[in-house]
Amino acid sequence: MNAAAIVNVSLGERSYSIQVGSGLLGAPASYQALPRGSGAVIVTNQTVGSLYAKRLGSALENIYPKLDIVEIADGEAFKTWPTLQRIFDGLVAAQADRSTTVIALGGGVIGDLAGFAAACYMRGVGYVQVPTTLLAQVDSSVGGKTGINHSAGKNLIGAFHQPLAVVADVDVLETLPQRELVAGLAEVIKYGAVADDAFLAWIEATLPALLARDKPALVQAVTRSCHIKASIVGADEREAGRRAILNFGHTFAHAIETGTGHGTWLHGEAVGCGMAMAADLSVRLGLIEPAHARRIAALVGAAGLPLRAPDLGTKTYLDLMRLDKKAAAGALRFVVLEAPGRAAVRTVDPALVAATIAQFDGAGTRGSV
Amino acid sequence: MNAAAIVNVSLGERSYSIQVGSGLLGAPASYQALPRGSGAVIVTNQTVGSLYAKRLGSALENIYPKLDIVEIADGEAFKTWPTLQRIFDGLVAAQADRSTTVIALGGGVIGDLAGFAAACYMRGVGYVQVPTTLLAQVDSSVGGKTGINHSAGKNLIGAFHQPLAVVADVDVLETLPQRELVAGLAEVIKYGAVADDAFLAWIEATLPALLARDKPALVQAVTRSCHIKASIVGADEREAGRRAILNFGHTFAHAIETGTGHGTWLHGEAVGCGMAMAADLSVRLGLIEPAHARRIAALVGAAGLPLRAPDLGTKTYLDLMRLDKKAAAGALRFVVLEAPGRAAVRTVDPALVAATIAQFDGAGTRGSV
Repeated sequence: MNAAAIVNVSLGERSYSIQVGSGLLGAPASYQALPRGSGAVIVTNQTVGSLYAKRLGSALENIYPKLDIVEIADGEAFKTWPTLQRIFDGLVAAQADRSTTVIALGGGVIGDLAGFAAACYMRGVGYVQVPTTLLAQVDSSVGGKTGINHSAGKNLIGAFHQPLAVVADVDVLETLPQRELVAGLAEVIKYGAVADDAFLAWIEATLPALLARDKPALVQAVTRSCHIKASIVGADEREAGRRAILNFGHTFAHAIETGTGHGTWLHGEAVGCGMAMAADLSVRLGLIEPAHARRIAALVGAAGLPLRAPDLGTKTYLDLMRLDKKAAAGALRFVVLEAPGRAAVRTVDPALVAATIAQFDGAGTRGSV
Repeated sequence: MNAAAIVNVSLGERSYSIQVGSGLLGAPASYQALPRGSGAVIVTNQTVGSLYAKRLGSALENIYPKLDIVEIADGEAFKTWPTLQRIFDGLVAAQADRSTTVIALGGGVIGDLAGFAAACYMRGVGYVQVPTTLLAQVDSSVGGKTGINHSAGKNLIGAFHQPLAVVADVDVLETLPQRELVAGLAEVIKYGAVADDAFLAWIEATLPALLARDKPALVQAVTRSCHIKASIVGADEREAGRRAILNFGHTFAHAIETGTGHGTWLHGEAVGCGMAMAADLSVRLGLIEPAHARRIAALVGAAGLPLRAPDLGTKTYLDLMRLDKKAAAGALRFVVLEAPGRAAVRTVDPALVAATIAQFDGAGTRGSV
């Protein structure tokens, strides 16, 4: 197992690379290849900023001619227009121009907000992701999806905007609350489930080391996750087809997050439960054996992720899922498993979806999942 | 002279065509080639909507499976986030999905807002421009620039998002206030000034017919303007280089618009005055003869555009221009004329800019311009 790795994301003129390893965040060498322009603006929140902004700043201050910082509120509840506006105001105050680089220092919320701000400021400036959560390292820092929430749906407003580079330093995971580490593992499990059954087996075997934050194990998990995501995104940047399989568990998850109010469940927790639900749905469609769905659910549970969905009522679930970006003309579409390590998108009969919801309903009886 | 024409905008997979002519807006044939998806949402304002939404709607209703309309407030002052939010809310209410097409029916403000909403809704849906002002037909409907204003600058927040098609019907110019027709001519003059001296001479000769809204003359003016813009945008979609020459007059114009409060001057009026100022600056740089600057100013004046800049004070002008998107690291950059029909971007000594401002200052003495 490597202690450091590079993952290349091949997207033509928008290609970039992800550095994964230990000791990267504070090392000037991690940023040497970036364009200088007129300066950089670090976007972070108070929590992450107090831990890492100084270390990052000293690595950057000799690279960029000018360095500013914009601090925004912490949490999914702030992934909204007013927060975005604060970033724009901060960029204006820093006299940012088209050659300014935005540095997103934080988790997925910071990455989505700072990336979307970079996508829109002067119709697009460059940005670098320095993800500080496991979830952001394996998911939101790869693929260029940026955006904010709308009361009608998560990430309803956004842009595809690829970063110039990603610096994923596993050292920062040391300060991550356990609940967030676990939430990040949901996406790691997802890559195994939809694209690589051998990786799924590796996660099962390595779970104790991952939960104990063993660095080589984390580097391996992040690297392999990014590899899988990069190869899928490289073939389908704008999510016209295959990229959609990365939303495994996400249709249920978005309904859970919207239905309970953004921020109540962590995204990864909702994805964990959503994956178990989507695997159950795959069994109901006759696509996979019940044993494989039980294996997914068991791994989700062993990681410490929830297996019981909130009691929103079937109608609310279905209504929320019909507004999902994957929905077309009101039909219910899900990413389902076709085999271990293989997924596809299917339109599904609402009655089957309702049966899965009943199976996982926190208020109802539970099966053997 | 043609009564109808097609201009192709070549941008690889983002290529599209502009139909220019008479009787296009209400003809279903104008929209036959568009993807159907799950429906269309017309975005317009009350003024334009009351005149043309019904005619457009009857052309579209047999093409799209579902047709909705979102009406927003009229005017540059509403090119802001709250208006954009109203469009998003309208798209949500119409259950718009990724296959929905947004139809922008209106002038540049509608095009910029609806285009930016389309760029961001679900990270990007298709849109069609049906421009109803001369300015929008020759300028904002070509090239994919979309966006909203920020208190610190015009179009500071936005995206490059190419339309699926543009339908430019000169019939709608019949109801355009004369002040707006004249403002549109500023951009027509610009294309001649920066790229085609023969076109500039044609505009000089045809100005009475254009001001009288002669349809073949308007079709010719729109078509040739779009051709010039399309060829420049085709070579430089993201404005990394040559496309910047289309901002001739615009650095002064943006300062005038921001300094007087958006909506006080029409954009085209500010561009008209700004072009005379930029031509004057070109003389001060020793690039063109004074006679050519006088020719530009004379055409601007003959079209009915202002030649006297508002008295903002030199410092305010310079400060506003330093925030312009073309500025790099605080330097003042301008599109200047190098010869009749040829333009370039130059960094300019603030003292020369101040001299031009003094020359055009509404409160000061005026020269022979």
